[in-house]
Amino acid sequence: MRVSVVGGSRIGPEEEATAEAVGKLLAQRGHSVVCGGLGGVMEAACRGAKEASGTTVGVLPGEDPAAANEYVDVAVATGLSHARNALVVMNGDAVVAVDGGGGTLSEIGFSFVYRRPIAGLGTHDVEGVEACETPEEAVNYVESTVESASE
Amino acid sequence: MRVSVVGGSRIGPEEEATAEAVGKLLAQRGHSVVCGGLGGVMEAACRGAKEASGTTVGVLPGEDPAAANEYVDVAVATGLSHARNALVVMNGDAVVAVDGGGGTLSEIGFSFVYRRPIAGLGTHDVEGVEACETPEEAVNYVESTVESASE
Amino acid sequence: MRVSVVGGSRIGPEEEATAEAVGKLLAQRGHSVVCGGLGGVMEAACRGAKEASGTTVGVLPGEDPAAANEYVDVAVATGLSHARNALVVMNGDAVVAVDGGGGTLSEIGFSFVYRRPIAGLGTHDVEGVEACETPEEAVNYVESTVESASE
Amino acid sequence: MRVSVVGGSRIGPEEEATAEAVGKLLAQRGHSVVCGGLGGVMEAACRGAKEASGTTVGVLPGEDPAAANEYVDVAVATGLSHARNALVVMNGDAVVAVDGGGGTLSEIGFSFVYRRPIAGLGTHDVEGVEACETPEEAVNYVESTVESASE
Repeated sequence: MRVSVVGGSRIGPEEEATAEAVGKLLAQRGHSVVCGGLGGVMEAACRGAKEASGTTVGVLPGEDPAAANEYVDVAVATGLSHARNALVVMNGDAVVAVDGGGGTLSEIGFSFVYRRPIAGLGTHDVEGVEACETPEEAVNYVESTVESASE
Repeated sequence: MRVSVVGGSRIGPEEEATAEAVGKLLAQRGHSVVCGGLGGVMEAACRGAKEASGTTVGVLPGEDPAAANEYVDVAVATGLSHARNALVVMNGDAVVAVDGGGGTLSEIGFSFVYRRPIAGLGTHDVEGVEACETPEEAVNYVESTVESASE
Repeated sequence: MRVSVVGGSRIGPEEEATAEAVGKLLAQRGHSVVCGGLGGVMEAACRGAKEASGTTVGVLPGEDPAAANEYVDVAVATGLSHARNALVVMNGDAVVAVDGGGGTLSEIGFSFVYRRPIAGLGTHDVEGVEACETPEEAVNYVESTVESASE
Repeated sequence: MRVSVVGGSRIGPEEEATAEAVGKLLAQRGHSVVCGGLGGVMEAACRGAKEASGTTVGVLPGEDPAAANEYVDVAVATGLSHARNALVVMNGDAVVAVDGGGGTLSEIGFSFVYRRPIAGLGTHDVEGVEACETPEEAVNYVESTVESASE
């Protein structure tokens, strides 16, 4: 499946390690990573996915596909600015949120709108987000919910 | 100024009365109402604004301006589906959120992204949203924060 | 009805006079002007409309409503960059194109997509655009086609 | 490079063969195909690209990535309706237009806006579109213009 990984663009080393581990785990289990294509959590998740030879898609706010971080395989420019957050969520079967501010909160909201299961790692404490302790727990959660939905 | 009123499209009588009072108060104080143009909180806020001869703008998710509720003066169709939530927030100097689900949560997130002060009436309990008890308190809050920002 | 006036943002005095006359005529006949909210044809059409006390709506490419020209009554920021051209067309019952380059050509294309009658004044020579000689001819054309469609 | 292939969604066998040949040639020369992800020219170009083991990206108007034709490798849903035409053009280094109606005309317009060289095969006769007789001529044209621009 495809999993959208969302979160802050300016993060510390701990959040970076978390996002990278999420990306790597997803790739190891055969899933693609969809993200906003820029830095921070987005870049770390893509880097993790590439370490395990996964596929990464970056849905960018600007008009230039070349603005994507270097770990994005397929960059899609939108020119929509922050409204592209809806597209990031829409293109995943599930969502993992790591850390994050207002943009991430909008993506949590869109996860509910588009009925995507969402796991959170140190992100906003909102009802409906499955608060997880580890990348593995988060990836397990989105795997199990998408599986049970498609049965 | 222009104030975006956001909230659930399916609401009970209490939320409807609250949203209508917010719209009316805004109009009485010379402010325009911007909203998503459809039913529920959006319609109630517009109806309230028109009771006090205010101006209302509806930014619609679909492609047909005629889909706006009857209290919208200027309907702007977008064809963007839920991504239009970013536009609703962007076009207000401040935001008042009444009740609401995932779409409203995305608008709260965009309020932070676009640095719009936001007052909440029975909406998501999120840090950064000024939780208010009455429509008057909410309108007072957004008036005071926008004023102090423009000084 | 609402008529979208589209055309170049950098124009000469002749095109400016044409666009202004189109806006004025539309307002004199009770129609609103919808446009892209910026300079050139957009600004001239709005200025013309305001000379006849008409109503003007500007659908902007950027995120700041304050970027609208001074003759726009209701500015709606979109943050969509050039993709907002679709919205400009979508929000008129008909379209008048004056001069214009690539952006205007995209709007002519959207006029066909959204089945809006379109009159042209010195714009791209494309089948389906009614080539007119004067603002009056253009306004007559869009009035007559929208009327006959709604009968 | 990435080349956007645009054109009608309802086409005859001749246009289908043309679009398929364009996609195949692009893939044989190492280029990816970007398109609107649906049927007609979009599907034929993707099918052609896959025959030569190329990569295909579909930028869809709706909210469901699963709506893409079966030859799309990476489907990106946008929920933007026809405004997504801007994104299709934005994500190619050059454009090839085959046949097509209003939507294709909007994409020709965006090609000028985003300064993408564009070759046409039986499409709108517009100044700035290089009218070509064969898929090979069209692919040669976009290759040569992008190359000379990047030198």
